[in-house]
Amino acid sequence: MSTYALGIDLGGTSIKGALVEQDTGVVAQCARATEGDQGPSHVLDRIAAVAKELMHTHNGPAPIGLGMGVPGAVNLERTTVSYPANLDDWAVVDVRAALRERLGIAHIVVENDANVAGLGSAHYGVGTAYDSFLMVTLGTGVGGAIIHNNRVFRGSTGGAGEIGHMSIDYEGPLDNSGVAGAVEAYLGQRFLSQHARLRLRHRPESTVHGLTGNDLSTLTPRTLHQAAKQGDEAAAEILAWAGHKLGCALSSAVNLLDIRVVIVGGGISNAGDFLLDPAREALHNQVFPGVKEGVCIERENLGNEVGVLGAAHLAFATNLAA
Amino acid sequence: MSTYALGIDLGGTSIKGALVEQDTGVVAQCARATEGDQGPSHVLDRIAAVAKELMHTHNGPAPIGLGMGVPGAVNLERTTVSYPANLDDWAVVDVRAALRERLGIAHIVVENDANVAGLGSAHYGVGTAYDSFLMVTLGTGVGGAIIHNNRVFRGSTGGAGEIGHMSIDYEGPLDNSGVAGAVEAYLGQRFLSQHARLRLRHRPESTVHGLTGNDLSTLTPRTLHQAAKQGDEAAAEILAWAGHKLGCALSSAVNLLDIRVVIVGGGISNAGDFLLDPAREALHNQVFPGVKEGVCIERENLGNEVGVLGAAHLAFATNLAA
Repeated sequence: MSTYALGIDLGGTSIKGALVEQDTGVVAQCARATEGDQGPSHVLDRIAAVAKELMHTHNGPAPIGLGMGVPGAVNLERTTVSYPANLDDWAVVDVRAALRERLGIAHIVVENDANVAGLGSAHYGVGTAYDSFLMVTLGTGVGGAIIHNNRVFRGSTGGAGEIGHMSIDYEGPLDNSGVAGAVEAYLGQRFLSQHARLRLRHRPESTVHGLTGNDLSTLTPRTLHQAAKQGDEAAAEILAWAGHKLGCALSSAVNLLDIRVVIVGGGISNAGDFLLDPAREALHNQVFPGVKEGVCIERENLGNEVGVLGAAHLAFATNLAA
Repeated sequence: MSTYALGIDLGGTSIKGALVEQDTGVVAQCARATEGDQGPSHVLDRIAAVAKELMHTHNGPAPIGLGMGVPGAVNLERTTVSYPANLDDWAVVDVRAALRERLGIAHIVVENDANVAGLGSAHYGVGTAYDSFLMVTLGTGVGGAIIHNNRVFRGSTGGAGEIGHMSIDYEGPLDNSGVAGAVEAYLGQRFLSQHARLRLRHRPESTVHGLTGNDLSTLTPRTLHQAAKQGDEAAAEILAWAGHKLGCALSSAVNLLDIRVVIVGGGISNAGDFLLDPAREALHNQVFPGVKEGVCIERENLGNEVGVLGAAHLAFATNLAA
């Protein structure tokens, strides 16, 4: 029996793929631009091309199947993807059927990308040390997953885990979905960048001005981290402000779920302890005493690989023939 | 095989017990004062007395076991109870062992009272119509349970479901546990009563003054409901204020869990739509569009029986000999 599977991480800008050996991890990688503005059929062709390239570069046994993380809602059967972010003209697509046709692979499983990141961490990353944890992915938006006893808790229809839509202030600012005080309204990339721009107007001493060529419109969370590492106080304060908000939201989730470990991944998590130490402090202060023991926030170190590894795990875990 | 079980609802002021027939419900009931100030051994004696009385009044086959809801944390094995509210000198007690000794019943299961209420609703109440829902119990405090696929989601150590410790305002007032902006800091009985007293000082026209004999210190949420039913605007406004806060907290829970049905029980839920309509409006406004379909808040109509029925269900559901 083959111990290989294909893992695909479909994003708004790129399709990342890997051939994964179950016990050892990534064997080969491949990536292409998503070209999501050209519609679902084109994107599915490109996903198939990535999968084929990975199979051709590998001389071993055929993979047992293909798992894929997607930036949208997935049905309970893990076959269709609805309204993925940043992919044009995409309503509800049966991705399993479309990829079966293109690839001739029977065993195909899709899942929301944050849930896939959670599985990647649970089986190949920092999460291997824990049975249950909350995964938080800080990217363009704020995603999340609930991993309970090494499985994804999916709720009634498969949409559980959206920590970014939890509110920390019922009278707070609105996020893109109109939820007041949602975490995403503070830590989503655009919201955080805009907050930083407004703050830095009054901090002429900040090195962020120089790093952006005196054009704050080019500022991203990465710039803040870069400046903070160089000792810039204003940038560190902004990251601490964001981390505090994250910790407050996580405390509600920990209090509700009695899941005490939080693992943070995604681009903005590269800001590391500038962001996570204030989050830890807020979490510690806001967690109900009965669930305080063992509460912690860790950073996922797998980087981008967490997605393709989690996707391949999906294929391994759901392979009934194995 | 017997289809009878004993269900016990241990509270700070009373021990309620019932003999329950699995399919038809409560066959016989019995209650005694808890006398929680006299220590755990005395309370356990009184629980045993309630159980014995129920067995003696019934001529049918012996019950298959005993289930009990308790106002405290329960371990994952559902045998010990830690630091229950309003019961003196009670640290960590192996309730199963203590009741086995007193009753000679082998099959004994304990569980947190809000989780038991959730099971009661799921198997005998409004919850029978749903596979998954959030149970909220509005009593002295604000309790809760996550029922997923007709089972209790217990988290890592058995403490999951504490909706009352979710925060709606990271800079809000503190509850008894020191959590800022926790729902319990608005809807806990003492907090809500105190909020009402402060508001009503400036509402001399309110009929609450008359209902309390012009002594607002005797006000309870029940008084507010009574006045609101009689058309008192101030009382209705206060209940709406509380309901709005509840709905805001529930929206975070629904967004996180993709569990879209909320069932509310406990004393303050008697305020009915004065409380729940504003909660519904807030929930509807604050729920992420992707999980909005089918979102609703219902009131549990079983009243006090929900606890003893849920407790008996615990015994039925975990009876390995059945």
